[in-house]
Amino acid sequence: MTSWPATAQEFAARLRSDAADRDRANQPPVKEVELLRQTGLLDETDWSTQQKITRIVGAADANIGHLLGYHYLQIWRSGLFDKPVRHESGWFWAGVSNPLDAALELTPAENGFLVNGRKTFATGAAVADRLVVSATRTDNGEKLTFMLDGAADGITYLGDWDNIGQKLTASGGVAFENVVVPNEDVLGVQPIDEHPRLSLAALGFQLVLAQLYVAIAEGALAEAAEYTRTKTRPWFVSNVGKATEDPHILASYGEMVAQTQAAGLLADQASDQLKAASDQGAALTKEQRGEAAVAISAAKVVSTKVANEVSSRIFEQVGARGTAAGYALDRFWRNARTLTLHDPVVYKAREVGEHFLTGEHPAFTGYS
Amino acid sequence: MTSWPATAQEFAARLRSDAADRDRANQPPVKEVELLRQTGLLDETDWSTQQKITRIVGAADANIGHLLGYHYLQIWRSGLFDKPVRHESGWFWAGVSNPLDAALELTPAENGFLVNGRKTFATGAAVADRLVVSATRTDNGEKLTFMLDGAADGITYLGDWDNIGQKLTASGGVAFENVVVPNEDVLGVQPIDEHPRLSLAALGFQLVLAQLYVAIAEGALAEAAEYTRTKTRPWFVSNVGKATEDPHILASYGEMVAQTQAAGLLADQASDQLKAASDQGAALTKEQRGEAAVAISAAKVVSTKVANEVSSRIFEQVGARGTAAGYALDRFWRNARTLTLHDPVVYKAREVGEHFLTGEHPAFTGYS
Amino acid sequence: MTSWPATAQEFAARLRSDAADRDRANQPPVKEVELLRQTGLLDETDWSTQQKITRIVGAADANIGHLLGYHYLQIWRSGLFDKPVRHESGWFWAGVSNPLDAALELTPAENGFLVNGRKTFATGAAVADRLVVSATRTDNGEKLTFMLDGAADGITYLGDWDNIGQKLTASGGVAFENVVVPNEDVLGVQPIDEHPRLSLAALGFQLVLAQLYVAIAEGALAEAAEYTRTKTRPWFVSNVGKATEDPHILASYGEMVAQTQAAGLLADQASDQLKAASDQGAALTKEQRGEAAVAISAAKVVSTKVANEVSSRIFEQVGARGTAAGYALDRFWRNARTLTLHDPVVYKAREVGEHFLTGEHPAFTGYS
Amino acid sequence: MTSWPATAQEFAARLRSDAADRDRANQPPVKEVELLRQTGLLDETDWSTQQKITRIVGAADANIGHLLGYHYLQIWRSGLFDKPVRHESGWFWAGVSNPLDAALELTPAENGFLVNGRKTFATGAAVADRLVVSATRTDNGEKLTFMLDGAADGITYLGDWDNIGQKLTASGGVAFENVVVPNEDVLGVQPIDEHPRLSLAALGFQLVLAQLYVAIAEGALAEAAEYTRTKTRPWFVSNVGKATEDPHILASYGEMVAQTQAAGLLADQASDQLKAASDQGAALTKEQRGEAAVAISAAKVVSTKVANEVSSRIFEQVGARGTAAGYALDRFWRNARTLTLHDPVVYKAREVGEHFLTGEHPAFTGYS
Repeated sequence: MTSWPATAQEFAARLRSDAADRDRANQPPVKEVELLRQTGLLDETDWSTQQKITRIVGAADANIGHLLGYHYLQIWRSGLFDKPVRHESGWFWAGVSNPLDAALELTPAENGFLVNGRKTFATGAAVADRLVVSATRTDNGEKLTFMLDGAADGITYLGDWDNIGQKLTASGGVAFENVVVPNEDVLGVQPIDEHPRLSLAALGFQLVLAQLYVAIAEGALAEAAEYTRTKTRPWFVSNVGKATEDPHILASYGEMVAQTQAAGLLADQASDQLKAASDQGAALTKEQRGEAAVAISAAKVVSTKVANEVSSRIFEQVGARGTAAGYALDRFWRNARTLTLHDPVVYKAREVGEHFLTGEHPAFTGYS
Repeated sequence: MTSWPATAQEFAARLRSDAADRDRANQPPVKEVELLRQTGLLDETDWSTQQKITRIVGAADANIGHLLGYHYLQIWRSGLFDKPVRHESGWFWAGVSNPLDAALELTPAENGFLVNGRKTFATGAAVADRLVVSATRTDNGEKLTFMLDGAADGITYLGDWDNIGQKLTASGGVAFENVVVPNEDVLGVQPIDEHPRLSLAALGFQLVLAQLYVAIAEGALAEAAEYTRTKTRPWFVSNVGKATEDPHILASYGEMVAQTQAAGLLADQASDQLKAASDQGAALTKEQRGEAAVAISAAKVVSTKVANEVSSRIFEQVGARGTAAGYALDRFWRNARTLTLHDPVVYKAREVGEHFLTGEHPAFTGYS
Repeated sequence: MTSWPATAQEFAARLRSDAADRDRANQPPVKEVELLRQTGLLDETDWSTQQKITRIVGAADANIGHLLGYHYLQIWRSGLFDKPVRHESGWFWAGVSNPLDAALELTPAENGFLVNGRKTFATGAAVADRLVVSATRTDNGEKLTFMLDGAADGITYLGDWDNIGQKLTASGGVAFENVVVPNEDVLGVQPIDEHPRLSLAALGFQLVLAQLYVAIAEGALAEAAEYTRTKTRPWFVSNVGKATEDPHILASYGEMVAQTQAAGLLADQASDQLKAASDQGAALTKEQRGEAAVAISAAKVVSTKVANEVSSRIFEQVGARGTAAGYALDRFWRNARTLTLHDPVVYKAREVGEHFLTGEHPAFTGYS
Repeated sequence: MTSWPATAQEFAARLRSDAADRDRANQPPVKEVELLRQTGLLDETDWSTQQKITRIVGAADANIGHLLGYHYLQIWRSGLFDKPVRHESGWFWAGVSNPLDAALELTPAENGFLVNGRKTFATGAAVADRLVVSATRTDNGEKLTFMLDGAADGITYLGDWDNIGQKLTASGGVAFENVVVPNEDVLGVQPIDEHPRLSLAALGFQLVLAQLYVAIAEGALAEAAEYTRTKTRPWFVSNVGKATEDPHILASYGEMVAQTQAAGLLADQASDQLKAASDQGAALTKEQRGEAAVAISAAKVVSTKVANEVSSRIFEQVGARGTAAGYALDRFWRNARTLTLHDPVVYKAREVGEHFLTGEHPAFTGYS
């Protein structure tokens, strides 16, 4: 898609125009996904471009950036099974695979399986065309990953996501009752042993989270700067005529912008490493997988700090009237605070520290 | 009131029990002020006890702590004019005197004045029994401070406070149309020259803000700790059986608790200094007034940082599920963020720094 | 000593006058202890006054503050055995009791014992008149604490303290070869079981460290401010005529001063709690001892951060020329960095956090 | 130089082996420059490689990294005059051009000029083969830049650099007495008007400083990690067998490593931008020059923070015994603290903030 930057920027501008209102309305992102579908951005296939689009969209609206980043990830990680992945233009993908809750059950049936059970925190699933789901076979205990039509019979979206941030991500639970999975939609078996390539999926989610944290900081800075430029009054003892001349406001923006840029570069570098690891295909070694994992953890450590700090600190640059509910400037912090708790960042820092001290790579888990 | 600690704690417990719900409901604090009236805490007259009650109540609900702290202040600062101040048991006081917007007008009339005009950000006024108001005489330009019945004819509460934090403080604007002020309700004239004693009023508000910032940090810690103790799951690679054994969670709480305690002591010390200055009566010198001002600014600098940091950092100790909207754990940060923007804290830091370097005291303004 | 403030200030001024030179000369504090002896401050007996003197002297010279603070502690902790402690005017006391290295051996002999062995890190011992020493009986394994004349036969001071900070504290090792300990100089037996009162000694050292950390921050600020006032040039694009008018310099000092004051109040509060616990005598409960321990740990957490941050950050307020070696402005950071590593502060934070979350008190150890 | 990575690493290893001793010896870097000459690294011509070498050498020894980084800069910035620059293999270059002190005087003489006067802070000059000097013509006030042989008659090196950090950079003053400058060694005239290309010189120094700050953080981390791995004892209540298993030590290293990597990427990005601007030659616009300036300022903001924080925080990961003077682990902080005061970083933050808010580019000065 040659015109992606313009398309992404236009879509971002549109999202930005009513992001505060939509945050307050707290509705599932049905309309937003439809708009996204119309942009064609869902069909982007280049890794690096996907990352850039995720940042641009995520800065405008972290909810939609989250949905889009995960969408790209689901297609990519489905491909790690080395089976052709069918994507049709305009399909929006989401996953049902929270690593920390009890697995769904797969009962063998004619030409496939029946899925039963519940999963929590399935970001985007309720508004998705295609779902990537993981579940455990009742007969032999194998963990399979498979595709489902988002509107398949027997799927109920619980609509139980009501959180302080990332409100519009449709991250509620999903219930499955005898949902049919034909054999051809099974992507593959999750091996018990450490499998560098298939285990890249977990790293992909970590990377996208880091990108979204950077995006939130970028978005917060852009929105705050617009406010400072147009609405903030200089403090009455500041001896400056405009808020944009206040030395403390200037220095604060400078520090925040510089830190955010640094975090962005670290996320981009981690993205390049994961792409390189992914491109290795079956030749990927644990060592290479491990280096990518550490790079992503480092990006997550830095971007977590930046997202939470910047989204709170901007308020000192906009001033008291910027807390009016209509601006919803707090959405950046609420989104950052919610999304950065995906898994505890201090354990990411430990991975980076352990690697630096001992050369060890992170364990293969749902989070590393 | 000998039993004030128990009374304050009981009231605080009651507020805490539905603080999250009330924050979400976003209604004027009519019921809360009525409850407060019933406790008898509105009639407390001891300075130090007032400060302690403000902290206890403010930790449970920063909105009501704000109303109560300002209530005490209005009575105290009315007394600075050295005219007996009438307070009847159960009266709830508020002020209409935002220093940064255009003054109200006072037109001389028979046995007094008529007030006309509008003021913004009059915390608590809409639910107050008695108002302390400042306005400017149209005939001679004098700025008078006077009392009004909150329900006096011609007063309209605009109900235009809708902000991300301190939602229940009824901090909207007030319109006055030919409101009658009898001469006996005029407290006095605000002198043009620097007047150490009357100018203490501005310091009182700064002090109460510092106390409320500390209270917010205390409240956030208490609520988060309760969550960590009862709901937080240990991270799956932490090798501990309970979240309260996780080394990082323990250390983080320890740092936050210690910083909050230090901030609280600094606010208490500043409170003692303002009390001592106030007790000087007419003998108060600019020097003494200035030392109290610097102490309060220092307290504000430390407590601002603590309130914003602690109310955000607690989330790392409660974990992802603690972002569910029902807990409204974000209210502490939203309240802190809103209230700490009352006036820009970096200018308070400058006052402290200037005094340390040069011995200068802050200028006499509406904020220092 | 009614005139102690003046005496302490004079002594501090004298120390300050050549602190940079003495830091560079890196010699044992023989002359300094002699000066200290002449002031009479060694004989101060009031707890609260001792703490204040330690802060005043420590701000001027953290080395001598360290020696003096520990001197008071040795006399106090000797008294915890409830045996009269003989102090003669002018005696300078020090201890030999690093908890982390192998104990000295006490061999029973006629009317007492012989001490043999080596200890590391015995701050002040090499220049002390009286030593408080702990060692283990070879016959029954009891750990005794006893007094020695600093110049007793058989004691060798190893002079092996050569560190980046606290250079003048004579914190080297001590070797004992058949040093005679008469029975009457034995203070008592360190019980194996938890003994609230005797175990206060460990808390005393933690408290004095916290006081010294605060003192270092105070000293750094005072010295830097003097430099900023008299030598720092305003930056050429700052549009101010003097460094003391630069907004960033003012705000930075303000933040540092406020944080240092808060840390000081927390240390003072902890001091009051330890004094109260000590005053309980045999009635002291584990609970009371534990509350004092937690208060001291909190003070140490805050003061550690303040000391290291302030002593580094001051350089931004003095500017490039302030790094000239002659000013030795780095001594504050080197002293802070060295002294704050006495034991790892994160474990103090954990104690505070654990107490806050669970009510547990710190274990009885040589450090808590 | 195809083998530069190995050469740089070998040289760095050699520097590292006695960096602590040389820091304590505090001698001019005569031997070090001779070693550097022998490596051939002085003749490296590729910009990007120069930057990498500066980081590698600077991590091992910030003094020598500083000399080498400035050496490359002097050759590069001499070339900005578009006159062929003669460099002979093994020549070590330095500059005499501190922007903040009074200019040297150039008196016209036969076939050239005579230089007279003094300059301060001429890093490396005392040990340089070639000097790049700026001075003002007495006849027409033009500011010329010219080359000198470092050993030319009439040059005296004052040897007055004695600072807490960057001790071995020979950054003392230089006196000139009738030093002969032939016309052919004059590089050109510094225009009074803003000249994008010639003014890149100032940016080059800012960039190299940012690279050195990153290098100091990298060096501090490497040295501290080696200590933690081999010498640090686990804290006695930590329940771990090795310091490299302590959760707090791991997390702290992780945070520091991640922040340092992010700072490094930002410096590298700024380096690419300056290279691109430099490659524009005469076509360089103010806009492009300005974008590079802002990128460099951002890099300086982030790397300043990282260098000062990491070089202080490492001590918590090495523990008390790591403060022994023999390790000189404080040299990283002393070097960082000294070098990061080159010019006040808050004014760099202001440049970044102003550009973000208003699009303005930094003024053309000796520092931006």
